[in-house]
Amino acid sequence: MKVCKFGGSSVADAKQIKKILNIINNDATRKYIVVSAPGKRHNKDVKVTDLLIALVEAVTYKKDYQELISQILERFLQIERELNIRHSLIETFRTQLNDYIMRYQDQPERLTDALKSCGEDFNAQLIASYNNEQGIMTTYLSPGDIGLIVSDEPSNAIVLEESYEKIKNNLAHAEGKVIIPGFFGVNKNGDINTFSRGGSDITGAIIASSLSSDVYENFTDVSGIFSANPNIVDHPASIIQLTYEEMRELSYAGFSVFHDEALLPVYRSQIPVNIKNTNDPDHPGTLITNTRQSTGVVGVSCDTGFASINMKKYLMNREIGFTRRLLSILEDMNISYEHMPSGIDDISIILRAHQLEGKEAKLLEKIEHELKVDALSIEKNIAILMVVGLGMKTLVGTANKATEAFKARNINLKMINQGSSEISMMFGIEDKDADQAVIAAYEAYFTH
Amino acid sequence: MKVCKFGGSSVADAKQIKKILNIINNDATRKYIVVSAPGKRHNKDVKVTDLLIALVEAVTYKKDYQELISQILERFLQIERELNIRHSLIETFRTQLNDYIMRYQDQPERLTDALKSCGEDFNAQLIASYNNEQGIMTTYLSPGDIGLIVSDEPSNAIVLEESYEKIKNNLAHAEGKVIIPGFFGVNKNGDINTFSRGGSDITGAIIASSLSSDVYENFTDVSGIFSANPNIVDHPASIIQLTYEEMRELSYAGFSVFHDEALLPVYRSQIPVNIKNTNDPDHPGTLITNTRQSTGVVGVSCDTGFASINMKKYLMNREIGFTRRLLSILEDMNISYEHMPSGIDDISIILRAHQLEGKEAKLLEKIEHELKVDALSIEKNIAILMVVGLGMKTLVGTANKATEAFKARNINLKMINQGSSEISMMFGIEDKDADQAVIAAYEAYFTH
Repeated sequence: MKVCKFGGSSVADAKQIKKILNIINNDATRKYIVVSAPGKRHNKDVKVTDLLIALVEAVTYKKDYQELISQILERFLQIERELNIRHSLIETFRTQLNDYIMRYQDQPERLTDALKSCGEDFNAQLIASYNNEQGIMTTYLSPGDIGLIVSDEPSNAIVLEESYEKIKNNLAHAEGKVIIPGFFGVNKNGDINTFSRGGSDITGAIIASSLSSDVYENFTDVSGIFSANPNIVDHPASIIQLTYEEMRELSYAGFSVFHDEALLPVYRSQIPVNIKNTNDPDHPGTLITNTRQSTGVVGVSCDTGFASINMKKYLMNREIGFTRRLLSILEDMNISYEHMPSGIDDISIILRAHQLEGKEAKLLEKIEHELKVDALSIEKNIAILMVVGLGMKTLVGTANKATEAFKARNINLKMINQGSSEISMMFGIEDKDADQAVIAAYEAYFTH
Repeated sequence: MKVCKFGGSSVADAKQIKKILNIINNDATRKYIVVSAPGKRHNKDVKVTDLLIALVEAVTYKKDYQELISQILERFLQIERELNIRHSLIETFRTQLNDYIMRYQDQPERLTDALKSCGEDFNAQLIASYNNEQGIMTTYLSPGDIGLIVSDEPSNAIVLEESYEKIKNNLAHAEGKVIIPGFFGVNKNGDINTFSRGGSDITGAIIASSLSSDVYENFTDVSGIFSANPNIVDHPASIIQLTYEEMRELSYAGFSVFHDEALLPVYRSQIPVNIKNTNDPDHPGTLITNTRQSTGVVGVSCDTGFASINMKKYLMNREIGFTRRLLSILEDMNISYEHMPSGIDDISIILRAHQLEGKEAKLLEKIEHELKVDALSIEKNIAILMVVGLGMKTLVGTANKATEAFKARNINLKMINQGSSEISMMFGIEDKDADQAVIAAYEAYFTH
């Protein structure tokens, strides 16, 4: 049995919806279907979720919002028309939107999450209804129906442990196809709380994990994951198989194919994830599993916008507790950091630069005052490039390949970090060199 | 004005003592002289300090120790004879040794430090006396006389801040040459406390700093510092000039030419250190200064016996306070660590393996229990190789040189760490590869 999730572009219009239903209906094992809100149909299109966010704003700032409601419903109406749906749901949707607005107009956070959930929710209802009309038994079930209980953290909900058992009990014996809207759950009182953006992946992963699905199929509009960003590298190779951990390292530095938090439930239950293409469903795509047979580099990713706080203190490494006190300062100021490379008498804190916003001066002053360092500076515009692949640690020359490639392109290395991880190597470079470095590393590992 | 320190081999016998007095007496600016205990005269010889440590043991375990006293005094007697000293000090020395034994026989720590100090103390008296007999006005002053006050930590004393002012006042207007024994100071009650072993360097540095010496000349038996260990690399180049910080990074990983703690007082007062050869005093040796004009690699050092505690936890980098809690565990157990390279979901603690002695099982259990990691392991037999030199960070290809050299010799890299330090790069390798790696790195940076 498979749990399938379809992203926004896979359910953006009638044509796409027919494609996904074809995919689902032709495979009896594809039973539990999680859908996103209608995404972009073309480059200049607006996602339904963005229309809903605009609606939240209009309501909150007491602007006229009827036009927005019409625009939102028009998207669904067009889908209904093109699908020749007999029983329109548009008026139900209109009532739902207006109900939420009335109920939550003085609770901006609740209003936001309730309205944002409508994109997925309406789409799931519509798709289920259409599939039923086609003679295939299909049930729409909301997160509340199936027991997807989340923490009461609007726009940043986290699934509660009890959900897994509830979902299992509620869904295991469902008949026919089951369509569930992604992106949100309900708190213990039944209030809607959405996951962080891109959260339909999370919904799918939770359901796949609850039901011990054989595989979690995640349909997007590309045939799996590329070894490097195709906007930077010309026709990069596709990754056939990689491990959860490799995926995590790649997504850390900019690979946004699969939502990071979505990996956790399937990682824990060791359910394989298959990233597939709605527009080319026979392509094997990319399989994410717990282990893989072969070793070697699977991908190169790079993310910009890091900063480095560098400090120096003579005999630092003799000072017991220095680093622990440094980390306490960061924790007190609610600043999370990424890495902490150190020399003998120096240490750097690598973090995402936005972590410093509005806190920089105070942080420096605290470090200066509490740790009495000899030198202290902040360096910005740092990019982190990750070379990811199992078996790195035992590959003589893995580092050499990258450093040689960087040297050939005159890319200056600010930081190199290969620690205990057997699956990645990290290079700190300047933001401006990011694209060149990705090309250099990709060529070094994939084309030679 | 210069402060000069002479190491054990420079004052091992009459011939060497004549050499050092020649060096001192021929330069009016060489005024304050710190001397060690007589060291080895040949490979199989025993240092006086080792004889004194044997004496401590004999007294402590109530063995017959008269033979040891004779052996110790015989060393000094032989020096006196060969120098044709008119007024022998041997009976004074004998009385001194017996006095200490009587006074401290029930205080093993005091006994240890008092007896250990005699090597330097007797040698300083003897050399001062001889120089006077040669018609050069020379004064012997003990650490107590000059105000070298230290913490009451036997065998591991630390200089107290007040000493600097005291020494300045007591010594600034001394006439003629002043000879001071190295290696020890007195606590506030006047009890002898020695520095950690090799501590004559510390004494010299404290005096140079107190007196704002123009230079601190540190005489050994080699012409300065080599760029790599001459026991591993065939005829390595000498270092002409390097900075305090470069020296510190080199000495961290095995360069034992200059005592680490000895650098602190001169670093703070920015007094240049000149490492020179008693047997070739015209050789410029190595100058250690605050800055230097040129940039580039100055040395390669490598030390073995490190261990790495590796842990993995899925979504570790989302867990605020993880590392701080890890460091608190180490601090609670009084384990000091060296480096902490990290990946996305993994972190390693690199430490000297002896830090784990008797604590390994408990440490692992605490980490497992308090941090709930997914995987935890300890790797031993790790060597750390440091490539040291100003301007590393801006040198494209610095890393590449080393990784290429390692690759050519099939040396597997376990860890690479180039952080904020602009003066070093650190490579983790296996103990067994240490010598090969030093040769590889030396050749890469110094012979190409």
